[in-house]
Amino acid sequence: MTDTLLTGATIGILGGGQLGRMLSVAASRLGFKTHIFEPGANPPAADVAHAVTTAAYENEAALRAFAATVDVITYEFENIPTSALDLLETLKPIRPNRKALAVSQDRLTEKAFLTDLGLKTAPFAAVDDAVDLAEAIAEIGTPAILKTRRFGYDGKGQSRLKSAEDAETALADMAGAPAILEGFVNFTHEVSVIGTRGVDGEVACFDPGENVHRDGILHTTTVPANLTASQKMDAVLLTAKILNALKYVGTMGVELFVTPQGLIVNEIAPRVHNSGHWTQNGCAVDQFEQHIRAVAGWPLGDGKRHSDVVMENLIGDDMDRVPDIAKEPNAALHLYGKAETKPGRKMGHVNRVKA
Amino acid sequence: MTDTLLTGATIGILGGGQLGRMLSVAASRLGFKTHIFEPGANPPAADVAHAVTTAAYENEAALRAFAATVDVITYEFENIPTSALDLLETLKPIRPNRKALAVSQDRLTEKAFLTDLGLKTAPFAAVDDAVDLAEAIAEIGTPAILKTRRFGYDGKGQSRLKSAEDAETALADMAGAPAILEGFVNFTHEVSVIGTRGVDGEVACFDPGENVHRDGILHTTTVPANLTASQKMDAVLLTAKILNALKYVGTMGVELFVTPQGLIVNEIAPRVHNSGHWTQNGCAVDQFEQHIRAVAGWPLGDGKRHSDVVMENLIGDDMDRVPDIAKEPNAALHLYGKAETKPGRKMGHVNRVKA
Repeated sequence: MTDTLLTGATIGILGGGQLGRMLSVAASRLGFKTHIFEPGANPPAADVAHAVTTAAYENEAALRAFAATVDVITYEFENIPTSALDLLETLKPIRPNRKALAVSQDRLTEKAFLTDLGLKTAPFAAVDDAVDLAEAIAEIGTPAILKTRRFGYDGKGQSRLKSAEDAETALADMAGAPAILEGFVNFTHEVSVIGTRGVDGEVACFDPGENVHRDGILHTTTVPANLTASQKMDAVLLTAKILNALKYVGTMGVELFVTPQGLIVNEIAPRVHNSGHWTQNGCAVDQFEQHIRAVAGWPLGDGKRHSDVVMENLIGDDMDRVPDIAKEPNAALHLYGKAETKPGRKMGHVNRVKA
Repeated sequence: MTDTLLTGATIGILGGGQLGRMLSVAASRLGFKTHIFEPGANPPAADVAHAVTTAAYENEAALRAFAATVDVITYEFENIPTSALDLLETLKPIRPNRKALAVSQDRLTEKAFLTDLGLKTAPFAAVDDAVDLAEAIAEIGTPAILKTRRFGYDGKGQSRLKSAEDAETALADMAGAPAILEGFVNFTHEVSVIGTRGVDGEVACFDPGENVHRDGILHTTTVPANLTASQKMDAVLLTAKILNALKYVGTMGVELFVTPQGLIVNEIAPRVHNSGHWTQNGCAVDQFEQHIRAVAGWPLGDGKRHSDVVMENLIGDDMDRVPDIAKEPNAALHLYGKAETKPGRKMGHVNRVKA
């Protein structure tokens, strides 16, 4: 393929959840078709995709057939099995690249990468066993939080330590998985920057959004965030630094803690990000389209915000409020079409736009 | 079915062009699936639909199978063969209703309906033969325009008469089809109102847009339109009058000529309308979602505009400008994924948003 995809080209997307769904809609706006690869049946993205493959990531034949129909491959989540990527990268370009995945699939690697870049993170230490954990607690102190190095999201695979006495329980929670102990950061609030880097190295960032979590899951994102001009500049510059260091192509979410001592990077996600959903109704080009533009080798949109927005996630039973939300003025609903409502499951979101 | 569809329900759409495509995307935002019925292969809507039936409108078995999978049927164009509707309406609800189609499928019926409502239209007369045409010219005068009563759009099936001498040529252009002679209206500009009526009779209108045509095809729509507060009120009230008279359910486009003597109705379209595409980037709920909300029995959005927008259609070779448009700040591209570019073919549009 050339670096620039033309209208009519097909973008392969690994993962068929709500992010794949919204990527697929954005791709359609630029005249692209999408092909979704997803092990689960009837994924949300299937309703708005040109083609869907339902197969396991271990199914080589299915991966090959998928790759044969697409011009470029991207993904909606970072925990794709390495073996699938090993095969796919021999067949079609994968954007963002493997390095971004390798860094963000492992909390320890990620923290090391960020500190090597000169960015601040929470204090951290690798924990493989009880001895490591004791040493880590001695170094970092408590309260602290023990997390599996891999495959954690939305508060899963995490255990809080109020004091050293919680060490044994916390380690048991890890079920033998390699872990990392992170110290608590004394922050005033959390913001995130959604940044995109194009094939030619161009970088565009959206205005930082301010995030509020509830039960370990993002609850709301508000733009503009409560930041000084200089904090906002720092946030955007450090995001660009991360994108450039990874030679990243696509959209990334960077979560930041705001502290009196400056911005501390909480984590990075090599994909479109829940805290960027506000861009769908606040900008001419949203985070999903920026990602598609990047992986298709197109110029990026400028990320300018035309409206203030508050995004609220609709989790589980929040769906019961949809009839009322539908009546609100200036409320843009985005439902994911998931068949079953479960506690903690992201079912949709609403962007409330200030006129 | 009940009057209100729940998330996960399927909306059948007759017609798979760009309007069906954008209706399908809007349906996905509310968690609905869509099933497209379209005789042509690989229609634009297929890229973002849950299911597609490729079959002729005369194929009864295909129509039955289609109807069996959907909860409600709507359409993206008004010239659906009557026989297909006769069958489908015995199987599932069709929204908007048959009356709206009957009125708008025939220019003469439409003009009579509008004048019966007390609304102003261009002077008109039915023309079936040369005698009718001579009488019509005597009554209406020239310049005038002869149009087929049915199946005309985007300037097709029309012939202009500068003087009575053009009568013979104009009649020949109709190729024997029943026609209507319309007098010219001395208007300063054209506006259109996109209005929606819900199942419960609720009506919501978007701000009128000002339309500029080029070669008989819509070129740009600008909001806000150049209208006094009282003209704007008139435009919205007459749109509501039309929607209510038809007991309409769905979104309709009403084209109006602005004259010193008041607003004159040019034509109505019982569907989402090209001049309403600006709502995708100017409102929290756009014309496509309003239509889906109406046919699904949901409450309507309030139609409030959060941003000023200029919509420009991308016709034929305008596609060559896409790489430049993609670089413009605050320009939202909407391409239709049509395989082949042809002169006069609508390939996409761009909404330029004022921040």
